[in-house]
Amino acid sequence: MITIAEIEAAADRARGVVRRTPLLSSPVLDEIAGRPVFVKAEALQHTGSFKFRGAWSALSAMDDTTRARGVVAYSSGNHAQGVARAAQLMGVPAVILMPADAPALKIENTRAMGAEVVLYDRAGGESREELGETLQAERTLTLVRPYDDPMVIAGQGTCGLEIAEQAAALGVTQATVLTCCGGGGLTGGIATALAAKAPGLHVRPVEPEGFDDMARSLRRGEIVRNDGPEVGLCDAILTPAPGNLTFPIARALCGPGLVVSDAETKAAMRHAAARLKLVLEPGGAVALAAALFHGDMLDPGPVIATLSGGNVDPDLFAAILTAG
Amino acid sequence: MITIAEIEAAADRARGVVRRTPLLSSPVLDEIAGRPVFVKAEALQHTGSFKFRGAWSALSAMDDTTRARGVVAYSSGNHAQGVARAAQLMGVPAVILMPADAPALKIENTRAMGAEVVLYDRAGGESREELGETLQAERTLTLVRPYDDPMVIAGQGTCGLEIAEQAAALGVTQATVLTCCGGGGLTGGIATALAAKAPGLHVRPVEPEGFDDMARSLRRGEIVRNDGPEVGLCDAILTPAPGNLTFPIARALCGPGLVVSDAETKAAMRHAAARLKLVLEPGGAVALAAALFHGDMLDPGPVIATLSGGNVDPDLFAAILTAG
Repeated sequence: MITIAEIEAAADRARGVVRRTPLLSSPVLDEIAGRPVFVKAEALQHTGSFKFRGAWSALSAMDDTTRARGVVAYSSGNHAQGVARAAQLMGVPAVILMPADAPALKIENTRAMGAEVVLYDRAGGESREELGETLQAERTLTLVRPYDDPMVIAGQGTCGLEIAEQAAALGVTQATVLTCCGGGGLTGGIATALAAKAPGLHVRPVEPEGFDDMARSLRRGEIVRNDGPEVGLCDAILTPAPGNLTFPIARALCGPGLVVSDAETKAAMRHAAARLKLVLEPGGAVALAAALFHGDMLDPGPVIATLSGGNVDPDLFAAILTAG
Repeated sequence: MITIAEIEAAADRARGVVRRTPLLSSPVLDEIAGRPVFVKAEALQHTGSFKFRGAWSALSAMDDTTRARGVVAYSSGNHAQGVARAAQLMGVPAVILMPADAPALKIENTRAMGAEVVLYDRAGGESREELGETLQAERTLTLVRPYDDPMVIAGQGTCGLEIAEQAAALGVTQATVLTCCGGGGLTGGIATALAAKAPGLHVRPVEPEGFDDMARSLRRGEIVRNDGPEVGLCDAILTPAPGNLTFPIARALCGPGLVVSDAETKAAMRHAAARLKLVLEPGGAVALAAALFHGDMLDPGPVIATLSGGNVDPDLFAAILTAG
């Protein structure tokens, strides 16, 4: 388990680099949800997702010699961009392993940030973990894991520190905080920060239908893997199972998980565009979908939904916008 | 001419109500422009455009008796929503005159904010000014003009106060500030604020091709009207001529106007979605278009582009996203 001191140290290292994202709202969303809804607009973070927080935290916590040798990461896209940009800003090499079927925008952006992108064949059964270990060994790069790394979780926790401050400024001391949940780094980081700084704000993770490994793991009290397909609409958060570091945090601090359908996620994306003027990717919209359409599963009172990313291919986004 | 004291008073009245919008950036935009580009994300303002600032300023400056009788406004949409929302928050009636061919999203949003919407036939030659005066007289409503009102200009100027502070925090003391320019309220308000608070930030208004009344008026030294069609892509900023109050401010404080094509505006909208995760309407993207594609017309150094609104119909937005 990480500590609030580690999150505060990550926030110190992030000062002047990581963006403080706004907490937004819209009366139309309040009306749909039947309660006050606030959104933490992490799609506005550098690289278009919260992942830059964790990447910056991990790289800035390394000793100079280790960092100078370079880093390697595997990711369907958002962690890739976060690590690539952090490495670029620090002037160190980054190699990113990405599935060949990742969204084109994410691959293109990662390359544009100066990283060496190595594509692997996810469908054909190539293992990114094995590829990553080979690269680590051959090139003495340091692996930056997408969520099961204490410094990455601490970095994501800086988002929770901001939520605590922003909610307090609005007079909101009791609320449900919905997180878009893949491996649980954002969920665990925010939950740790809020437990220390705003204990009336209670985190509940949200996942897409068919990829509810965190919700089922929380119900069972132990890590359960998804056994369905590996690809789906919400590419950013389709991890096979909660992490070994993140699950104990979620188990200790979070309420039951929520599950939303792809149709609800798409509707949330349309509302975010029309009401908040934000471009969200599917995986970044599941928490808003739960806020808007699953209020019956939540305690009364305000909801704060993290909008965790906006890296969606324009053609897909356009198709979703016009399908409403 | 309005004073910095009037803008600061508007900022005092706006505290806790008007949103402080972020100043964002993206390395990809810097690369396209060949210089640092910052954007003031007014599409994230309440009601999706900067117009809420001026509307709140005007209504909050009225005496209680006048305000309680209600307000009337004419607008193709963004001023309408700003006035409707300010009136709703203050609990006073609002009647909004809108052209029947305004974007459906703007009409729908204005109604959703509790305003009475009266549609008029712009193409058929109905005069919104005459309709507005009739309503004013019959119902003792107070007209809130879209830009030629000192309290409205002062409210838009609060955006300039924020730009001055945010640029200073980044160490930017010399820059070109590009404003999306319709009647000149935002341009005049920001220019007045910056002249007092950040004199190294120099405003230049940006307009769409065929609607460059401000640019031509600045060249001629007197107000010149557009003589072309009244409708076009950038519906939010297609005013017939600079205002009687706003033009003298622009003449005193702003550099030459810039003109962008509709194709450049659409490209700027695509970049804003892909890189900044912001939904912009065409009229809210002209300043970014000038920053990205007309650098040869600008002094060297950083550019700050206002992104003034995001109220675009989803079908149009989707069509623009996929046309790139």
